[in-house]
Amino acid sequence: MRADDRDKKEELRETVIETDYLKHPEGSVLIQVGDTKVICSASIEERVPPFLRGQGKGWVTAEYAMLPRATAERNIRESSKGKVSGRTMEIQRLIGRALRAVIDLHSFGERTIWVDCDVIQADGGTRTAAITGAFVASTMAFSRLAQKVDLPTFPIVDYLAAVSVGIDNEGGVMLDLCYEEDAAAAVDLNVVMTNAGQFVEIQGTGEEATFSRGQLDEMLILAEKGIQQLIGIQKNVLETSGGTLPKSAGGGEHA
Amino acid sequence: MRADDRDKKEELRETVIETDYLKHPEGSVLIQVGDTKVICSASIEERVPPFLRGQGKGWVTAEYAMLPRATAERNIRESSKGKVSGRTMEIQRLIGRALRAVIDLHSFGERTIWVDCDVIQADGGTRTAAITGAFVASTMAFSRLAQKVDLPTFPIVDYLAAVSVGIDNEGGVMLDLCYEEDAAAAVDLNVVMTNAGQFVEIQGTGEEATFSRGQLDEMLILAEKGIQQLIGIQKNVLETSGGTLPKSAGGGEHA
Amino acid sequence: MRADDRDKKEELRETVIETDYLKHPEGSVLIQVGDTKVICSASIEERVPPFLRGQGKGWVTAEYAMLPRATAERNIRESSKGKVSGRTMEIQRLIGRALRAVIDLHSFGERTIWVDCDVIQADGGTRTAAITGAFVASTMAFSRLAQKVDLPTFPIVDYLAAVSVGIDNEGGVMLDLCYEEDAAAAVDLNVVMTNAGQFVEIQGTGEEATFSRGQLDEMLILAEKGIQQLIGIQKNVLETSGGTLPKSAGGGEHA
Amino acid sequence: MRADDRDKKEELRETVIETDYLKHPEGSVLIQVGDTKVICSASIEERVPPFLRGQGKGWVTAEYAMLPRATAERNIRESSKGKVSGRTMEIQRLIGRALRAVIDLHSFGERTIWVDCDVIQADGGTRTAAITGAFVASTMAFSRLAQKVDLPTFPIVDYLAAVSVGIDNEGGVMLDLCYEEDAAAAVDLNVVMTNAGQFVEIQGTGEEATFSRGQLDEMLILAEKGIQQLIGIQKNVLETSGGTLPKSAGGGEHA
Amino acid sequence: MRADDRDKKEELRETVIETDYLKHPEGSVLIQVGDTKVICSASIEERVPPFLRGQGKGWVTAEYAMLPRATAERNIRESSKGKVSGRTMEIQRLIGRALRAVIDLHSFGERTIWVDCDVIQADGGTRTAAITGAFVASTMAFSRLAQKVDLPTFPIVDYLAAVSVGIDNEGGVMLDLCYEEDAAAAVDLNVVMTNAGQFVEIQGTGEEATFSRGQLDEMLILAEKGIQQLIGIQKNVLETSGGTLPKSAGGGEHA
Amino acid sequence: MRADDRDKKEELRETVIETDYLKHPEGSVLIQVGDTKVICSASIEERVPPFLRGQGKGWVTAEYAMLPRATAERNIRESSKGKVSGRTMEIQRLIGRALRAVIDLHSFGERTIWVDCDVIQADGGTRTAAITGAFVASTMAFSRLAQKVDLPTFPIVDYLAAVSVGIDNEGGVMLDLCYEEDAAAAVDLNVVMTNAGQFVEIQGTGEEATFSRGQLDEMLILAEKGIQQLIGIQKNVLETSGGTLPKSAGGGEHA
Repeated sequence: MRADDRDKKEELRETVIETDYLKHPEGSVLIQVGDTKVICSASIEERVPPFLRGQGKGWVTAEYAMLPRATAERNIRESSKGKVSGRTMEIQRLIGRALRAVIDLHSFGERTIWVDCDVIQADGGTRTAAITGAFVASTMAFSRLAQKVDLPTFPIVDYLAAVSVGIDNEGGVMLDLCYEEDAAAAVDLNVVMTNAGQFVEIQGTGEEATFSRGQLDEMLILAEKGIQQLIGIQKNVLETSGGTLPKSAGGGEHA
Repeated sequence: MRADDRDKKEELRETVIETDYLKHPEGSVLIQVGDTKVICSASIEERVPPFLRGQGKGWVTAEYAMLPRATAERNIRESSKGKVSGRTMEIQRLIGRALRAVIDLHSFGERTIWVDCDVIQADGGTRTAAITGAFVASTMAFSRLAQKVDLPTFPIVDYLAAVSVGIDNEGGVMLDLCYEEDAAAAVDLNVVMTNAGQFVEIQGTGEEATFSRGQLDEMLILAEKGIQQLIGIQKNVLETSGGTLPKSAGGGEHA
Repeated sequence: MRADDRDKKEELRETVIETDYLKHPEGSVLIQVGDTKVICSASIEERVPPFLRGQGKGWVTAEYAMLPRATAERNIRESSKGKVSGRTMEIQRLIGRALRAVIDLHSFGERTIWVDCDVIQADGGTRTAAITGAFVASTMAFSRLAQKVDLPTFPIVDYLAAVSVGIDNEGGVMLDLCYEEDAAAAVDLNVVMTNAGQFVEIQGTGEEATFSRGQLDEMLILAEKGIQQLIGIQKNVLETSGGTLPKSAGGGEHA
Repeated sequence: MRADDRDKKEELRETVIETDYLKHPEGSVLIQVGDTKVICSASIEERVPPFLRGQGKGWVTAEYAMLPRATAERNIRESSKGKVSGRTMEIQRLIGRALRAVIDLHSFGERTIWVDCDVIQADGGTRTAAITGAFVASTMAFSRLAQKVDLPTFPIVDYLAAVSVGIDNEGGVMLDLCYEEDAAAAVDLNVVMTNAGQFVEIQGTGEEATFSRGQLDEMLILAEKGIQQLIGIQKNVLETSGGTLPKSAGGGEHA
Repeated sequence: MRADDRDKKEELRETVIETDYLKHPEGSVLIQVGDTKVICSASIEERVPPFLRGQGKGWVTAEYAMLPRATAERNIRESSKGKVSGRTMEIQRLIGRALRAVIDLHSFGERTIWVDCDVIQADGGTRTAAITGAFVASTMAFSRLAQKVDLPTFPIVDYLAAVSVGIDNEGGVMLDLCYEEDAAAAVDLNVVMTNAGQFVEIQGTGEEATFSRGQLDEMLILAEKGIQQLIGIQKNVLETSGGTLPKSAGGGEHA
Repeated sequence: MRADDRDKKEELRETVIETDYLKHPEGSVLIQVGDTKVICSASIEERVPPFLRGQGKGWVTAEYAMLPRATAERNIRESSKGKVSGRTMEIQRLIGRALRAVIDLHSFGERTIWVDCDVIQADGGTRTAAITGAFVASTMAFSRLAQKVDLPTFPIVDYLAAVSVGIDNEGGVMLDLCYEEDAAAAVDLNVVMTNAGQFVEIQGTGEEATFSRGQLDEMLILAEKGIQQLIGIQKNVLETSGGTLPKSAGGGEHA
């Protein structure tokens, strides 16, 4: 039995993605992974940053934040501190890189997609939930854009989801760690993958600990299983919400 | 007919307050006023800021922020800019002062109540919705505190709610302006009142315009009506959620 | 008898406005309200901020600061702290809004008026003294501008002055609070009005206290009286200094 | 004839020092050197910075700033920029070092003297005027302190004044440069000296130019003459205002 | 043939570690990996950060920076920008975590080891060179500490080195990428390992690309080979310099 | 005998300048003055700051920093603190001004020379070593530029070097103070001179002390001697490295 009453090491937490959660953004979702809740929105801006101007391609950038009381103890706001923490920067750089791996930047003109991931309640796995939700919000935003303007091809080339795996103090691997498990884990590995089973990002860290090649292999297999389930949920949500599917999924046409 | 299809100048937007919206804070609500949605949480910290130490009294402080895409156009995050805007400071100072007017700082020991108001969707009146919601979140937090520790008296001395009133370009007054009305208004007045009908704060501003004494009187009457309705909603919510009622309402006892 | 030896509740402190106090600005005054002393200067810049370019209208913006030892205890400089306090932001936003209510932004081309209010000695009422003084400095700057370039109409449409009123701990109202009175007051209300008797801004705050409608009415009447006296002083000063009078005062012509 | 109508190269501008210019500080002056006007205040704080605690000695620190419109063109406030410029830091470090050279830090207990020099109007020589004025403000503050508490000896050990000298584009030396002269000068030398004729600080800079040993000697002689005159003015002012004179001047006793 | 004239995909660049490079730090090295040069210093501070006080354990923290002209184009200094970039934060967090995995925090008292990695010349692989060099600098610092004070056990428990591996655009893997290779690579993987062959950290990123499980396996094998060579160099250097060897290497005794 | 075992008061420390120390900058040196080591690099940027655009002249600007452990105790990084200290600003302004005095800004087009002086080990005299080294780095950069593009004349008009002199506690003068001497000195004077014997900058400071005209004269003579020796070393290094000599040295031609 796991910390949050799941039966098995390889069980995902219940994951629900609600689309069009907010009124203003071109795409938005509330993703809930167990008690972790993240609002992901995708905003389309009709220009690119200066370093890209005139190249005929677009850009995708991400920001991540937590409400002060998303956590068990209140955190000081980063706006009050006047600077963004290293952890936040690391996560928002990760989300942006991950999305760019499945978005064809040459297919939607000189536009910027701003992806905002705001954690309103945290119980472990906020960065992976943010990626999984941001993928759906971005796809919804591109679906809207494709209805308004003529795009050469649908910009999303494959599904993308992320999950954490870890090793507990007795050396056992487990999927989708809740906060209590994460805090106690010896090793924490975040994996971002596509529907085609390709890795986009792996970040594995021993927390004052190390891990063997065998343990890494076990974790990667578990992660792949979890990600396939998450992509199943994404497919469902996109079809139900009228989002366009990725090209690789025979998509690029309106669902 | 008003911009958002309300019939009358003196009609409030539909207002819903959902308590215990978040898992971690001592008190939390999601308040919806029309399309304006604000998460208010109240956190209890077991100490006071340095300037108050050793005086045996508590403190209440508030912070306010918006998600970047709470609005029709995306706003740059204040954490990315590295500083809090004047508008944000003005609003969070207002929320804090308003709450302190109905909270007896001598009744809950050397503790700080952190009130966080995060606008997830904005359609006018975010600061007044924040005050109305923050009152309920704070009352819930004090209710929890009163169950855990012995307080000499229940700290909330009266109900508190806030509403905006304004004057349109033809000189007519109106209650509870949505964004479209607010942007077009010649005068904007925010009023914070108690159930006893006492003013806590009034802030009236001509936007490149001015207003007469007669218009001020009309607006104040309208505001008072709106606030009485809002307090009715607060009472309902607190009774349903098992929150303690303010002392002035025959409360201070568990509802 | 009041804290600073004034006889009556409705008595203003002695108010003196010295024009052309500084050599470089287009308009400048030293305003003294009792022991409160503020240098107000109005600088004309031959361009507007980016958001206004090409619209053929001007802009008015204000900044406010205190010398570190304007007060009984030395304050840390905001430049040393690296950020402007919420109080400062609130005040400079108020001064700018107030001035814009009586300045016709379409009448002086694409220019920015920078109004700087620097408190060199503080004894209560610094924000209202700043507004009253800034009005004269701005009028002097526009008078100079009108002599140099052809303006379609004189930009100042009416007189503008500000005063504070308050309620002491026994519930009595009083006009133009000095620091000692302000620190002890239960309620503090700042009022900005025109010569035509129109309100531009009212900001009333209970300091851990509340106020009734009757008390508000009393305060508003007192404030209006005080403002009429201040506008009398402004008229005198402008006529003596050769400043142009507002249009509403039969002005817009050189005095 | 010089830029500001002085006859001679070795002529100081008219220099006036008004003591007790502000109500709150322990010592304060308005110093006018030609059109340059600086408010200098000296505040006594009853503690020292952490690095000095427990050593039984005091500290003297200085800050310098300009009002935005002290100059012909408006400068952006350093508080708005969020940082202090290199020029400001350089000047305030200079003022602090200069004062510490004539103040016996062991003679006034664990106290900090905060010296604030705020330029309200600038016409060249603001840093030297600040030093000359700050000396008087500090002496007045110590005089007050000496009346209230028992000091082992009067902390001011000698007079201190500062002046600028320079070389114009034809190679001629001149004393006490106004802004127009300073802007055109090839070399600028600031000298801080005591009444005993000792140097405290010399800072000479070729502005995209150089200077010979002979020119340096000429400038130093001119500076010394100017400083003797300034010290004469300081003596006069201190005697008139009831300030205590420096020990070296047979002082340390009340004037 | 590779971009920098190495023959083979599995060839490390020439790596030289010079110990005691600086005079002041307790441990310091200059590490050169091809044209990449990093100064690593380890400083021992006799206290821990507040969150660890009183727990009887130590702390290891790292900072990373580049000289502005370490790169082909000059970079703006982070001190001038007033903030540390996301890339810098990510790297210094990585270095700190990596070192903490092989340092027994309970073995050297309440002390902080500050590890500073300053890149003076960059040609790819600066973060991995920094880790490899920082390990030696830290070991030297602990060797010095162990000579001065009594430690229960030598704090370094195993060797630690890091290397990058990548996939070029034709899908081939390669070890220890120089800048030109790194800029062109489709995938970049940084691996940190111990002498025992345990992973401490793996960070693999597709740069607008993805990678298969087979490619990941190939890269991990290559990385392990490279790291064994780097640890060989570290052993050599430590023995020559009189540093203490890690416990796992039969060390903990003076070499 | 001096603190670092030099025999005489007028003896320079051993000074070595290694050119082309870094691979990327147009000019770079490592200068060692005793145990003080500074990396100076000169980077050429093909544009000037906004305030100079279109004037057909170039600009020279300098930045200065220390590695955190360049000193006996570790200093906090200025990038971590988020601001540059007053000392750093003062030094980098000095280096820039000094270089501009011997560089003809009209001779190298609209280009900016960025001079970066990074102290990797400090033992007193870092600012003077930085100037002496920066001169060589800049000359090397201009030599490279002159080989690539046609310059009307070689921009360096004369040699430039800097040295410190001081007065110890017994009143004796000494040349080129090491850290221990500097910390104990009563007076510290930094002198920047050309080969022609002209002063570019003198900055003399009594550290809670003063100095007489006679002492100043003694120090200036000692400084001039030291600077002539340093310029001899610069000549040697430039000739050996193939740098172009200054025009005044019969140079401007390739050595």
